[in-house]
Amino acid sequence: VVLIEQSLGLPSFRPTLKVPIIVPLLGTIGCFFVMFIINSTVSLIALAIVITFYAALLKKVLIKTKGDVRSGLFTAIADWATKISNDLSPSKEARAWQPELLIPVEFPKEIKGAYRLIYALTYPRGSIKVLGMLLGGEEERLRKYLPELTNSFKKAKISSSYTLVDGADFGKTVSISMQALETAFFKPNTIFLKLDEKKEGLQDKYLPIINETKKRNWGLVLLATFESVGLGIEKTINVWLDVIPEDWETKLDLGNNDLAILTSLIIRKNWNARLNIIKTVRADSSLEKEEIIKELNNMRILTRMPKDTQIHILERTPSMWSMAPSADLNILELPDKEDLDLNRLQEIPNKLRTACLFTLDSNIENALV
Amino acid sequence: VVLIEQSLGLPSFRPTLKVPIIVPLLGTIGCFFVMFIINSTVSLIALAIVITFYAALLKKVLIKTKGDVRSGLFTAIADWATKISNDLSPSKEARAWQPELLIPVEFPKEIKGAYRLIYALTYPRGSIKVLGMLLGGEEERLRKYLPELTNSFKKAKISSSYTLVDGADFGKTVSISMQALETAFFKPNTIFLKLDEKKEGLQDKYLPIINETKKRNWGLVLLATFESVGLGIEKTINVWLDVIPEDWETKLDLGNNDLAILTSLIIRKNWNARLNIIKTVRADSSLEKEEIIKELNNMRILTRMPKDTQIHILERTPSMWSMAPSADLNILELPDKEDLDLNRLQEIPNKLRTACLFTLDSNIENALV
Repeated sequence: VVLIEQSLGLPSFRPTLKVPIIVPLLGTIGCFFVMFIINSTVSLIALAIVITFYAALLKKVLIKTKGDVRSGLFTAIADWATKISNDLSPSKEARAWQPELLIPVEFPKEIKGAYRLIYALTYPRGSIKVLGMLLGGEEERLRKYLPELTNSFKKAKISSSYTLVDGADFGKTVSISMQALETAFFKPNTIFLKLDEKKEGLQDKYLPIINETKKRNWGLVLLATFESVGLGIEKTINVWLDVIPEDWETKLDLGNNDLAILTSLIIRKNWNARLNIIKTVRADSSLEKEEIIKELNNMRILTRMPKDTQIHILERTPSMWSMAPSADLNILELPDKEDLDLNRLQEIPNKLRTACLFTLDSNIENALV
Repeated sequence: VVLIEQSLGLPSFRPTLKVPIIVPLLGTIGCFFVMFIINSTVSLIALAIVITFYAALLKKVLIKTKGDVRSGLFTAIADWATKISNDLSPSKEARAWQPELLIPVEFPKEIKGAYRLIYALTYPRGSIKVLGMLLGGEEERLRKYLPELTNSFKKAKISSSYTLVDGADFGKTVSISMQALETAFFKPNTIFLKLDEKKEGLQDKYLPIINETKKRNWGLVLLATFESVGLGIEKTINVWLDVIPEDWETKLDLGNNDLAILTSLIIRKNWNARLNIIKTVRADSSLEKEEIIKELNNMRILTRMPKDTQIHILERTPSMWSMAPSADLNILELPDKEDLDLNRLQEIPNKLRTACLFTLDSNIENALV
């Protein structure tokens, strides 16, 4: 039976260039049909054997990594599937959201320091695209380091790729790259930046990117570390929520908190960590503490946060940072100001004495669905 | 049977977020197994019915174009398939080559005039990405025209997308976009440019792109039309070959002629046109005419050109253009000069009195495999 199937079925695997497609197709279908009519049990076993062999061959070929006829075929199939699905769903679905990061890097150390976090953010389903910015100075190191980095991500089963871009202006180059990537089938949806106080012209380089992400509906995460503490023992995550729209439950809209909640959930899963929700309340708020806790509990369930998540309520005062429960990572929304001062942003991790992740929603992700 | 299958099999269609994946998987496999053991013929018919229903539903949903649960699923599947295939074959295979065009456009008329040719180049398997360059002047028109264009390509079943890029420098912006798109899973592989004598700063705008494509191993096609003749009756195509490496048969390398031959084959198929091969011979060539024809015939077979392809041999003199058989489109390789004068290039279509397509290989495409 295996013999029949191979001689009849496999021709349909050839790129259908000149042979009319109906011939191998009919052959395959007819063959399967006859197989199952004659003896269904044996056919199923035969099929299983063929698939096993195929999987074994695949494993072997993977080690070689040199292309062959088969991989050309795979490329073509994936290409076709993508185009179909692209036609079916022109816009990305909120349900299928996963972090697809675009990481502009000027110095290798920026991404080295963030490696653990990027991994936690994208494993197992996200993807990483690194833009190596050739602004002079560290060109050679980038050229050497980025292929290594991409390989180590690939070994960790995270799909990643990199490119080297030369452009004189950091903000402009990233912005053009974002616009160009809009045409890609699987376009990245989130920019990842590392805040580094010592970076020259930080404000001029990052602020245009932040404004561009707002304009183009991309998400943004900004990592600011505290001295050399890194991510500590990777066991506790604080999620800070400030303003939540009053009618979030009916409109299914959490304001600018979706990305913060989603990233915290993804990182929690990878670290197997505990979550704290910290809700800050303004002095003029009319709501009772009880009500807020009830609402947050409701939200915790709808966003599918684990049961052992703790809820803390803090009053919004300059001293609130020191009242927060200690954690290995704080996730906050990026202050929504036109003239955000990035150097002042660094004060928050300094006060909290832990790394902070600032998020900015793209309006596409939704933590409630 | 359909009932069993639906109640047991369909759970595996859910995004496998919290449910252990093995449960629905085992259910599905077990169910199929039992189905075929009980009665294989009826099972096959039942399967066919389910698939038919599914296809019918799909058609209906397509008209709505609004996303639903199903399309989120499709996106996720396509995403997954792409990442797998990307891991399997890191580099694009020459066998699976198809024209994936990147088209920088400054004025809508540039792409309007080339619509028929772009269609012939990409139907049915290629893809089109349009970069609308916001250099001022025609911004509003581009904003209105590009969505229309993308839609009409999509209706013609060609996958296409567009983006609007603002950057002050044409060449630089295209070059950054190319570099950024290197990170995409299905990156475009060929730049499409329209030569327009009246365009301001043509040389400054296009020459950096041409040099960049050479440096980055992309292909390039450059369309130059003759007055308002367009593509005539779309029935005859001339392919001009100049230098072919002597050992092309053993090295499977046709020099810079691969893209010219491949594009001519694709366009011929879409137009159902006749091909002419025109080989130009230099005066100092030692080969006999007979030998050249024999070799070209050999090449014709290996590149799978149709049997009615005619072979012409012309001596390379300034008057050779007038000796060429008349055609609706001439495909030539782009002269390989560092300081190519794009305005002088326009002289060739003027002499031939038909549209010309100049090609530049990326070294990835191969007409012989």
